[in-house]
Amino acid sequence: MSTNERENLLHLLNEQLRHFSTDTILFHQAVAEKLGLNSTDHKCLDIILRNQPITAGKLSDLTGLTTGTVTGVIDRLEKAGYVFREKDPEDRRKVIVRVHMEKAEGEIMAHLQSFGQSMKAMLEQYDNEQIKLLFDFFERSRDITRNETLKLKK
Amino acid sequence: MSTNERENLLHLLNEQLRHFSTDTILFHQAVAEKLGLNSTDHKCLDIILRNQPITAGKLSDLTGLTTGTVTGVIDRLEKAGYVFREKDPEDRRKVIVRVHMEKAEGEIMAHLQSFGQSMKAMLEQYDNEQIKLLFDFFERSRDITRNETLKLKK
Repeated sequence: MSTNERENLLHLLNEQLRHFSTDTILFHQAVAEKLGLNSTDHKCLDIILRNQPITAGKLSDLTGLTTGTVTGVIDRLEKAGYVFREKDPEDRRKVIVRVHMEKAEGEIMAHLQSFGQSMKAMLEQYDNEQIKLLFDFFERSRDITRNETLKLKK
Repeated sequence: MSTNERENLLHLLNEQLRHFSTDTILFHQAVAEKLGLNSTDHKCLDIILRNQPITAGKLSDLTGLTTGTVTGVIDRLEKAGYVFREKDPEDRRKVIVRVHMEKAEGEIMAHLQSFGQSMKAMLEQYDNEQIKLLFDFFERSRDITRNETLKLKK
């Protein structure tokens, strides 16, 4: 394979990744719309779910969003009934955020179930070596993405 | 490899994909913040760039967003100076949207350049067969993602 063909392959994959990122964002926007949220709120809810109870400061650290943006996110999530704020029982000066589990898991899962099943059926067509290659690819991509997000915040 | 190990591999990749989608959305949110936009506006700008001149109706079709949401998106993009509306010279009853190319390409590219370089260096470590496997994986994932987005819109 010539240098040009190699470059063409890399170019096609790059374009594919760009399209994939657009498709992913539009899918999550559609899920978020169903939940009455924007896509940043939706992904923050996912992060709160995995790290609760959480302070606004910690959510800001984990997401790279400014504290001002995070306050707005928590306000909207609280208003929509997905999370609530309470005083930290271990330090009454601190406010922590918790998820209303039944509402959040029920509503998010209802909208992601069909997507999850389709992806699962697709992934099962790959053998174990290929699954490992994909896992490794996403590990590297996540490292790059998080580093670049942090750079943008500086 | 036992059934359990296979299931574990698939589970790990699934979790990885979920994290990757969160990281991607937060990265694009960070780019959008730099541009003074939200992430949906930012991705719509990308789609307008590739399909201009475009009507609001066509943008709604391509994104799956409601016409109401699309109007808000174009308003914000116009206010931020990235796009402008004009009457379609071929049909004066129609309004079409165009991009202020210099501003849009200059500002978006400035923020994506470092990310693009890091991804390129990472992708170059894969051989052609692996690149093809990744391309094919993203092709399938995009089909699923777009189908599921359309389902959510019904």
